Amino acid sequence: MPKGNSSDCTCRLANEVGQLKAIVNAQSKTLARLVRHMKDGCRKDEESKESTLCGLNPCLKCLQPDILYHLGLDTDTTDFPKVFGDVRFVCMGGTPGRMENFAYYVMQEIGLKINAATKLRDMAEAGKRFSMFKVGPVLCASHGMGCPSISILLHELIKMMCHAKCKDPVFIRIGTCGGIGVDPGTVVISSEAVDGRLNAAHEILVHGNSVQHASQLDEGLADEIKNCHDPCKDNYEAIIGRTLCAHDFYEGQSRLDGAFCEYTPEMKKAYLEQLQSQDVKNIEMESLALAALTSRANIRSAVVCVAIINRLNGDQIKTPHEILTKWEKRPQELVARYIRKVLYFNGNDSESEQTDEGSEAGAQGGAGDTQKATAEED
Amino acid sequence: MPKGNSSDCTCRLANEVGQLKAIVNAQSKTLARLVRHMKDGCRKDEESKESTLCGLNPCLKCLQPDILYHLGLDTDTTDFPKVFGDVRFVCMGGTPGRMENFAYYVMQEIGLKINAATKLRDMAEAGKRFSMFKVGPVLCASHGMGCPSISILLHELIKMMCHAKCKDPVFIRIGTCGGIGVDPGTVVISSEAVDGRLNAAHEILVHGNSVQHASQLDEGLADEIKNCHDPCKDNYEAIIGRTLCAHDFYEGQSRLDGAFCEYTPEMKKAYLEQLQSQDVKNIEMESLALAALTSRANIRSAVVCVAIINRLNGDQIKTPHEILTKWEKRPQELVARYIRKVLYFNGNDSESEQTDEGSEAGAQGGAGDTQKATAEED
Repeated sequence: MPKGNSSDCTCRLANEVGQLKAIVNAQSKTLARLVRHMKDGCRKDEESKESTLCGLNPCLKCLQPDILYHLGLDTDTTDFPKVFGDVRFVCMGGTPGRMENFAYYVMQEIGLKINAATKLRDMAEAGKRFSMFKVGPVLCASHGMGCPSISILLHELIKMMCHAKCKDPVFIRIGTCGGIGVDPGTVVISSEAVDGRLNAAHEILVHGNSVQHASQLDEGLADEIKNCHDPCKDNYEAIIGRTLCAHDFYEGQSRLDGAFCEYTPEMKKAYLEQLQSQDVKNIEMESLALAALTSRANIRSAVVCVAIINRLNGDQIKTPHEILTKWEKRPQELVARYIRKVLYFNGNDSESEQTDEGSEAGAQGGAGDTQKATAEED
Repeated sequence: MPKGNSSDCTCRLANEVGQLKAIVNAQSKTLARLVRHMKDGCRKDEESKESTLCGLNPCLKCLQPDILYHLGLDTDTTDFPKVFGDVRFVCMGGTPGRMENFAYYVMQEIGLKINAATKLRDMAEAGKRFSMFKVGPVLCASHGMGCPSISILLHELIKMMCHAKCKDPVFIRIGTCGGIGVDPGTVVISSEAVDGRLNAAHEILVHGNSVQHASQLDEGLADEIKNCHDPCKDNYEAIIGRTLCAHDFYEGQSRLDGAFCEYTPEMKKAYLEQLQSQDVKNIEMESLALAALTSRANIRSAVVCVAIINRLNGDQIKTPHEILTKWEKRPQELVARYIRKVLYFNGNDSESEQTDEGSEAGAQGGAGDTQKATAEED
């Protein structure tokens, strides 16, 4: 081999080594940040800062302690910044079981693990009303049925975000719904929530007076979640459209199979077709409160529901349990992909996209501060 | 002893024997009826009759099967008259745990037992939304929080009563509430449910139009339950008054500790004092839907809640858990006494009052059709 070539080769190799070292260094920093973020809750240097929420009750800071009664937590006995300061995603769904399953699913999808001798703890167990599980930066909570129920949860979660000084948390409801002219199994991502009169506002009575709060949802977030759907691989559709939020399951949704029904099938048909003509894609029961309360606090939020029936074709849900279970996973899949994408591909360092596998390995240390403990023998 | 006296004595004894035999016979019939009622579900000769509910959806009978989706039951796979036909009391409360505890408590109070190898089964487990336990003629169900949630339960329970051909069932909600000018620990039995504007009507949106349903509660039932309170023995008060039903826990109840609060402490004080001046004794979140839906179906209903705070003195519930647990038992005690009284002292036979102990002993055969099975080894 001629001397000149050998020298060129050495020089090229040295350059490559230099570049690779730079990448490795950058990756190490990204890895270290992610691992620290997931293992130790919020970063120490951020602890003194405030949350990004706004428009909140000015008296919150005076409450010592503040008692989140329905979550069974208070600021005296729980160090909110330490325990919840790293939360970036708050995912909510109707039932405790579904949210526990989602917590384990998202744990796997974002590459976290817990000690084999432990399991996720229901952190709201003491409150006896909701279930809540924490997987690193993801909080998974059940919200029950209807706007009053989810509004209690949201007031207390928003207070939690404030006390914990969380930065730009994203709130997402995953659930089921009745579709309007969409095939059962389709995932509907809400562009906005409207009431039974198609007004995009959540009405509450304060001191006997009606107060309306706008119920728009974050368009960008809806698009980001929709982009996590792969039309080639996913054998179902994902669409964006308006969501009607009803305050009951039967008469408010024009069902013919409630205990009471004071309208005809023709009147039902006319109402549902009117909804369809106004781009209403689905009906559920919590989106108005979610949209209004998160929007008031400057929190980006989304509603991602799978239609388990096309209401133009019927009222009763006769789909077998196994298929319903399969469909219920679809909003969970899209939201888990979205979270994974934000965590691992939307980092500040451009090279973070290249560290996917490494990040997963690096992040396996723990699923959050509260999940590090191993079972004690006593 | 003179002969005449002996003859008188014999005669008197013979009379007494005759009277006692008549009483024993009457008691035996009462006992047999009660035991049959509790062991075998509804009586065979009543199976062909219809329920006493009225005003229901005329299409219900056409639904084959009718699916009570949120209870996880349907008329195809469950024989409603056989399983639920003997239900006379439907007791509801917020959380699954509280209603399971109440089921065991009422079982003991009305003298029923289950096989030592069995436990009460959550009959709504398949629906994943509510919990439901059956103890002979008493059904105990959790209703979640807020009118939309309890309205789903009520639609499905009312359909159940209809399919099961139940006779004059009584619906009672037991729970907790915020008191208005009443000492914490006081039990408030609602005379009527009113909304935030003090209207005694539950508003629903049907096809985008507001429909109002009267929300009066059964006065006689409220009195009967209040009469079960013993002012000499019970170391708490029980009162009857108007109940404000709010659609959220924070702003709708004028709390100062929600995530949002756009009013001053003075405005809150003025509103709560206005409520007090209008005989509103407490605030909770489900009475409007309960009163309106049961009233539409010709079902007698009551709301019995213990105040866990006097809202004129504060917002946050700081009472220790042990005391709250003790207070939560109070509505349960009163309602269990009421049920016991109706079952054992309000019978058609005048002598049934005298058979109290016997009835209890006789009724110990089982807590209902569904609770007779013993655990199988498999």
